[in-house]
Amino acid sequence: MLDVNLLGTGGMVPLPGRYLTALMVRYRGTAVLIDCGEGTQTAIRAAGLGFKQIGVLCLTHFHADHTAGIPGLLLSIGNSGRTEPLTVIGPKCVEQVVQCLCVIASQLPFDVNFIELGDGGGERVLTIGSLTISAHPVEHRIPTYAYRLELARQGRFDTDKALALGVPVTCWKRLQEGEAVESGGRTIHPADVLGAPRRAVKLCYATDLRPAASLAAFAAGADLFICEGIYGDPELLDKAALHRHCHFAEAARMAKEAGAAELWLTHFSPSMLDPMEYLRTAADIFPNVRIGQNAATLRFTD
Amino acid sequence: MLDVNLLGTGGMVPLPGRYLTALMVRYRGTAVLIDCGEGTQTAIRAAGLGFKQIGVLCLTHFHADHTAGIPGLLLSIGNSGRTEPLTVIGPKCVEQVVQCLCVIASQLPFDVNFIELGDGGGERVLTIGSLTISAHPVEHRIPTYAYRLELARQGRFDTDKALALGVPVTCWKRLQEGEAVESGGRTIHPADVLGAPRRAVKLCYATDLRPAASLAAFAAGADLFICEGIYGDPELLDKAALHRHCHFAEAARMAKEAGAAELWLTHFSPSMLDPMEYLRTAADIFPNVRIGQNAATLRFTD
Repeated sequence: MLDVNLLGTGGMVPLPGRYLTALMVRYRGTAVLIDCGEGTQTAIRAAGLGFKQIGVLCLTHFHADHTAGIPGLLLSIGNSGRTEPLTVIGPKCVEQVVQCLCVIASQLPFDVNFIELGDGGGERVLTIGSLTISAHPVEHRIPTYAYRLELARQGRFDTDKALALGVPVTCWKRLQEGEAVESGGRTIHPADVLGAPRRAVKLCYATDLRPAASLAAFAAGADLFICEGIYGDPELLDKAALHRHCHFAEAARMAKEAGAAELWLTHFSPSMLDPMEYLRTAADIFPNVRIGQNAATLRFTD
Repeated sequence: MLDVNLLGTGGMVPLPGRYLTALMVRYRGTAVLIDCGEGTQTAIRAAGLGFKQIGVLCLTHFHADHTAGIPGLLLSIGNSGRTEPLTVIGPKCVEQVVQCLCVIASQLPFDVNFIELGDGGGERVLTIGSLTISAHPVEHRIPTYAYRLELARQGRFDTDKALALGVPVTCWKRLQEGEAVESGGRTIHPADVLGAPRRAVKLCYATDLRPAASLAAFAAGADLFICEGIYGDPELLDKAALHRHCHFAEAARMAKEAGAAELWLTHFSPSMLDPMEYLRTAADIFPNVRIGQNAATLRFTD
């Protein structure tokens, strides 16, 4: 099970009732957090999620609404009892920025490793089991990246085949996990009992950016595209462009171009009190769109 | 009018529904903020207060639950349109710590001045009009200070005296503000129309500390003593001492020793879900005690 949780939907400043935009993706005991603004640790608690599993923190960029929660997050991960290393991925100088912020969060009980992103488009950054994290540069006021998470999925276990081959039920789990087993004097390979590999689950998270064809290509075929929608009011298209942000309509056009299955809008301007008011701006272009909500979840079977 | 607003009551970590402990005191267009943990800017918004007036930030110490909100706060003050300088007061190295945190909050539209506290007890740190801020070192795991705010109050304006002296009503405001005026060929001094100076309003804010007689002396005669109460359960007295924190009973004893008029408890452990459950632990020692609440306010006339 891959479990996706949008922790908040705010941009620029945390508001009462609207946490800053961040995403937690959990898969088989490891959680990947993307962005960590002021209050993200509170959003994690509000969503009923834990800290100990957080093994990877991806930063889109270094603006405070995406990073100011890092010291508190690391301390809370430490207090959760985690001792395994944490990997932080981000733009150039990620290590220096995080170390600076940690002037108030020293003596953590785990190591922090850093991966500094390069300029390449769509580069594969980290693989954790069947989960692959890739990053892609987008245009904003400072260096910024979108992230893509892909979960490779093997074929479904075919119980009829397994029974026909006489494989004992006690061996099924090992075969499902990719291990060959000995049964009745012969070797049974996973391919003997698994169907054809299924399409990977693909998520793309992109915020604080100008729309771009290369980003739509990066998000191509996404099951879920989580994208900034700073404003929904059609009259504010120019303002979004001026500040190098992405409007509801622009996010919807990218989702359409990417052939995404579903679009969630997030990173709302504090001036937009009720984003739902502008849903149609996006839905007219890309119907399967949702206005992001605190703790909105989606689950995919693996 | 001196307006006191307890922004939150949490210790260690921000919780949904419980902001971290911080205090805002407003007087004649200037706001003094004491401590700024993760989410304090959200608490300021939730309390309906503004950012532009914030002219002084006092830090008790550098633990993250008292400082992690600084970058976001400074950005929000900047966005409010403030261009006047801000003064930050704190323990040794306050400038270096704040500058480090500001790796994600550069290009502020106002200057930040720093006042580094010394080792002296009860030292007067800053005077803003009739308001004086003093600091006093307390015992915690790292260098920590309590703060005292005192508002000097002149005597009340005696309208009978002013009328008897034939002072025109148009001159009253200037006399109230301490200015001598000419009236009917003679000089009228403020002392001619004002009663005896009134006792100063005194507030003391102390959190993250072990109780001490010197702190009770620093808070002596306080109209309001806001003090840490990390635990209320009588069985956790030793635990409070072990972690260099202050228990409800210890805060109450200091309030009694100080002869304070009122005590507010704050900086509750996240493990204490309902501090009200333990009110009696403090009230048996010092009856005029309240369990702090988000946005609890008190006003004093000047």
